[in-house]
Amino acid sequence: MGRPRTPLLDRERITTTALQLVDESGDFSVPQIARRLGVQTGSVYHHVDGRDGIVELLRERVASAIETATLDLEPWDTAVEAWARSYRAAFAAHPRAIPLLMTSPVRAPRVLDQYERAVTRLLDAGFEPAGIMALITALENLVLGSALDLAAPETMWELPDRAATPHLAAALAAAGGHRADRAFEVGLAALMKHARTLSGIHGSLRPPNFPVPPVT
Amino acid sequence: MGRPRTPLLDRERITTTALQLVDESGDFSVPQIARRLGVQTGSVYHHVDGRDGIVELLRERVASAIETATLDLEPWDTAVEAWARSYRAAFAAHPRAIPLLMTSPVRAPRVLDQYERAVTRLLDAGFEPAGIMALITALENLVLGSALDLAAPETMWELPDRAATPHLAAALAAAGGHRADRAFEVGLAALMKHARTLSGIHGSLRPPNFPVPPVT
Repeated sequence: MGRPRTPLLDRERITTTALQLVDESGDFSVPQIARRLGVQTGSVYHHVDGRDGIVELLRERVASAIETATLDLEPWDTAVEAWARSYRAAFAAHPRAIPLLMTSPVRAPRVLDQYERAVTRLLDAGFEPAGIMALITALENLVLGSALDLAAPETMWELPDRAATPHLAAALAAAGGHRADRAFEVGLAALMKHARTLSGIHGSLRPPNFPVPPVT
Repeated sequence: MGRPRTPLLDRERITTTALQLVDESGDFSVPQIARRLGVQTGSVYHHVDGRDGIVELLRERVASAIETATLDLEPWDTAVEAWARSYRAAFAAHPRAIPLLMTSPVRAPRVLDQYERAVTRLLDAGFEPAGIMALITALENLVLGSALDLAAPETMWELPDRAATPHLAAALAAAGGHRADRAFEVGLAALMKHARTLSGIHGSLRPPNFPVPPVT
């Protein structure tokens, strides 16, 4: 499978069609894409590196909505936090793509470059290399779990009998609106606080929410 | 739509078939279930409260693997942490059910009862009622994001050119095995640490990992 030399427009049309199918049904097939574009299935394969290649085009498309400039913010924890928020927003626009993209390996160069930038920020902030991917993945688990949650109803618990679950009813009544956003804020605050304690340089000497100059 | 009065066995067979379909394709339809069971579609509807009713049967089935006895452990944070681990294991067995169950409201009585028990533990531990659902949902976002991640390959980043992303390559080389488990441990430690500071009674006076007697 060589690198296909085709006009960008064709791959973009294939990507757009695949994303429409995923948004509608959570999956796509190459024959479905061909049918929507009014071409033979073989013609689609002529433009992309098979089904896996289309998954990577989808990944690049969805991830292109992540504001990667967030990763240049100072200090490092402001950068990582802003990146996580933008990451969540990008995937919340395509919740049905999340399981597909989460369960296939990342190969798209532009997406790998984004990980490179995030890892670099954490290395520069003094994190142990051995723990960086676990921290990024924990953040992604929260981000993508929350992006799926954004596709859920605001009223997520429907109590047929409030007397059967009185404490749940009280907690729901007290919770207020923006259910998914509030939960994400709790999770993100927890992860960022933990991350600050893991950072070798800023470390636990730093009081919460007290900005320190970036290490360059 | 009245409560169907049917033998338990029939609803169990419908649930088992729906779960097989979801495990295979991420979704189900009532006609598909009927076809697999060799009955008319109308016969399936005779046994359940429509498609939504089947979703709740699926929720009960998947959640039945969660060890609810974890919620009785002492102290409260040991209970919540053990519940989160068991919750993740239960859903990791059916990753394709996660988007379906996360995006439809919870109505199943046995599942609502599990939330009631979790909320009660947190109330007893001194949490503000207004923050409890956000904390539980943040935990669920992490748990279900991580359960999806468990369905992903161990090698999640495939670098075609290590020189293009040297820091990512180094972080991956340093990370060791059990990628998804390590990330979950980081996220769970972060959320539990944060939860301890939110707990009004144990609060920030308590050093990490130092057990305190339960409040009863």
